[in-house]
Amino acid sequence: MGKEFKGKDIISINNLKRNEIDLILDVANEIEKNPHKYENCLNRKIMIPLFFEPSTRTKMSFQMAMMQMGGNIIDFNPDLSSRKKGETLRDTSRMVNGYNPNVVIIRHNKDGSAQLVADVISCPVINAGDGQNQHPTQTLLDLYTIKELRGKIDGTKIIMAGDLKYGRTVHSLLTALNLYKDCNVTFISPKELRMPSDFIKDANNVKIEERDLSDLEKSLRDVDIIYMTRIQRERFPKGFEGDDLYEKISRKYCLTLDMLENSGNSHIKIMHPLPKITEVDKKVDDSKYASFWKQAENGLYVRKSLLYLVTGGKNEE
Amino acid sequence: MGKEFKGKDIISINNLKRNEIDLILDVANEIEKNPHKYENCLNRKIMIPLFFEPSTRTKMSFQMAMMQMGGNIIDFNPDLSSRKKGETLRDTSRMVNGYNPNVVIIRHNKDGSAQLVADVISCPVINAGDGQNQHPTQTLLDLYTIKELRGKIDGTKIIMAGDLKYGRTVHSLLTALNLYKDCNVTFISPKELRMPSDFIKDANNVKIEERDLSDLEKSLRDVDIIYMTRIQRERFPKGFEGDDLYEKISRKYCLTLDMLENSGNSHIKIMHPLPKITEVDKKVDDSKYASFWKQAENGLYVRKSLLYLVTGGKNEE
Amino acid sequence: MGKEFKGKDIISINNLKRNEIDLILDVANEIEKNPHKYENCLNRKIMIPLFFEPSTRTKMSFQMAMMQMGGNIIDFNPDLSSRKKGETLRDTSRMVNGYNPNVVIIRHNKDGSAQLVADVISCPVINAGDGQNQHPTQTLLDLYTIKELRGKIDGTKIIMAGDLKYGRTVHSLLTALNLYKDCNVTFISPKELRMPSDFIKDANNVKIEERDLSDLEKSLRDVDIIYMTRIQRERFPKGFEGDDLYEKISRKYCLTLDMLENSGNSHIKIMHPLPKITEVDKKVDDSKYASFWKQAENGLYVRKSLLYLVTGGKNEE
Repeated sequence: MGKEFKGKDIISINNLKRNEIDLILDVANEIEKNPHKYENCLNRKIMIPLFFEPSTRTKMSFQMAMMQMGGNIIDFNPDLSSRKKGETLRDTSRMVNGYNPNVVIIRHNKDGSAQLVADVISCPVINAGDGQNQHPTQTLLDLYTIKELRGKIDGTKIIMAGDLKYGRTVHSLLTALNLYKDCNVTFISPKELRMPSDFIKDANNVKIEERDLSDLEKSLRDVDIIYMTRIQRERFPKGFEGDDLYEKISRKYCLTLDMLENSGNSHIKIMHPLPKITEVDKKVDDSKYASFWKQAENGLYVRKSLLYLVTGGKNEE
Repeated sequence: MGKEFKGKDIISINNLKRNEIDLILDVANEIEKNPHKYENCLNRKIMIPLFFEPSTRTKMSFQMAMMQMGGNIIDFNPDLSSRKKGETLRDTSRMVNGYNPNVVIIRHNKDGSAQLVADVISCPVINAGDGQNQHPTQTLLDLYTIKELRGKIDGTKIIMAGDLKYGRTVHSLLTALNLYKDCNVTFISPKELRMPSDFIKDANNVKIEERDLSDLEKSLRDVDIIYMTRIQRERFPKGFEGDDLYEKISRKYCLTLDMLENSGNSHIKIMHPLPKITEVDKKVDDSKYASFWKQAENGLYVRKSLLYLVTGGKNEE
Repeated sequence: MGKEFKGKDIISINNLKRNEIDLILDVANEIEKNPHKYENCLNRKIMIPLFFEPSTRTKMSFQMAMMQMGGNIIDFNPDLSSRKKGETLRDTSRMVNGYNPNVVIIRHNKDGSAQLVADVISCPVINAGDGQNQHPTQTLLDLYTIKELRGKIDGTKIIMAGDLKYGRTVHSLLTALNLYKDCNVTFISPKELRMPSDFIKDANNVKIEERDLSDLEKSLRDVDIIYMTRIQRERFPKGFEGDDLYEKISRKYCLTLDMLENSGNSHIKIMHPLPKITEVDKKVDDSKYASFWKQAENGLYVRKSLLYLVTGGKNEE
């Protein structure tokens, strides 16, 4: 299954149709359940991870996905690269293409850079985050987690909390939920960090509500999932004023075990793209509410699925 | 042999019994003599080296050990990690655990961090140095070298020289020698860098003597081995005064070829955990006294032994 | 073929005879045409890339070459190395040698360091650039490209343009062309960056001419190839004066598509070691004149050839 993906680039969640997403998630699930059937399906395939920006989880899970399916990985260290000498991303990409890799992963701080790289490189390119633009494998693992928690994505009731202004993950997840039926999304954020109206306008198939940060606890009652995001210090102005504002906002924003237990909703699950800092109390880590550990793990299966599909790998059936 | 090690963490030399150490060294020796018998025993196994601190030798030899036995290695670069965003080591470890590695190597500047990581991660964890605390694979390779030089460890007469105050290697080696019979250890160090009394007290099975730095040359006569350590500039105060003190101490501390030849002990061997700076004269490098090159190489065999044992690898017998 | 290379170090183009170079290029061509025949020839072989200096292309192509032939690669990160603690390159090399790698690649900012490493290490060592001294694999890929473009190297008419004073690539290429018959080399550079007289004197088998930068366009008519090089900002004094001089020189030095089309030489090809900045107009990138993309790709085949030859790899004939 999935032959139509062979050779394709995965640049944006916006380019994927609902049935394509469903296929990616089904293959991910099949691989999660039968890892050994896929352990040689990328034998002799070589991945080049062009990570121009910090990444722990994404880079490591792409590497693990590749290796656990028999593939190999080239080490690329951007600090040591020709960028310093002034080489363009386009030229670097043409050079990479000449070495004939089987799949390229790109992470870069500039919006649109993933498409630029994909235009130059012949083999499949997967976007692992380009600036504020897209991070499609994150969205796919979020959808995978929702489906795992609820059995399906249609009808999901979810709170998106925290930094909804700059948070790339919540923007893309909202866009993706718009492909499904009967989803309810409640936005809860500091007023400085509200969801931009453009995203709301485009998600016309989702029922949207916006609530005040002080309503966080009582809103837990009505949903299946709360999707927490980190307040990103780096988005605030530098210096004392920025520090103050960041402190003021982040102090008020913390999900505690008490809030969860007082909500009366014993089925609610917490998702978080990680890393988390202070926005989820450590006491929640080992509770039944915490789905973020499995969510991170799911990145492995979703990335295996994509690597398998785009390289046209063969399993051992 | 060694099935009892399968799945175990290697965190501290203090947790190992004498018969366990002897087994690790025997397997290391078997692997050194028959490398090809073990070249596929870690096929499809994946190691994650969580090196949060500088390391050349330890990291490289763990990598070589893994690869020469058919295993694979994930690249982890702490500079690019979520630590910068404030993620705890515990959270990073949980994330790593979700990706299902076969063995994790941890090096970190904080005492106790190896145990913390091992508590979270399901697969075997090997401590490659946690702060001033433990570096068990170094101690094992030191013991391997002593046994190789003398045929056995019981009855070893050894000088420990240099920085005995901060030197993690000599602390652990002393602790390990305490498990063996009839060992004699002579401490020779600048007075600012003497062996802490706690370690001396705990090594009550070892015959201990302390001598002045000026007695270095004549002490060479009475021992099998002199274990040299580097005076660590980073342990002294910053600035001119620290520089002066470091200069004063390190200038007086140098083992020369003349001293060795004048000692009348033609069998004495020099060990050193490396890197060495000025404490061993370069003329010694190619002499019959220099055992530190083979000692470094022995790190490969000891680490192969541990990787083989804890992952339950199968050789080709 | 090529058994005489087994175990050899590749340190300098000056050590290679014409028939040896021809063999390396023939094997590279055979590997380019039949990659699958060689995909297991380095199975179980391990490369240690000792890159003490920035490199994108060279490091990546050595890695790809190794992996596409079935070999494995150790990660070495100089920032995390014992160098910081003051270890000498000689000591680092002895340590590396003890771990028994199958091939070592060395890049270092000091002239002569490749030979130093090769003197200590038992397995084959390949120089990937030592300071201003040598970068033999670059010269071999340049020769491979010339042969590919013209069918042979004898009789090549080539312009070397740009930084001829500090440009290691043009120095070595000139030395190599001296081994072939009837070559013509025209130097065109800013007057501050002329080819040093020593290199000219040694290339007594090559017909040499020097022209003014203003004659660049009309000189294109008479040659097969123009070999462009980057003006290296880092060679000029720091500060405003250096900036001014660099700006002045680099502004005048740019090869445009118009110049190429006006030259009336529709067969001329452009080579460039890359990265390129402003010295070749972007409009040239996709023109029939641009040979630098294929030239970069050729680095893969030449490095495969060398790795195959020095390790004595076996293909699947």
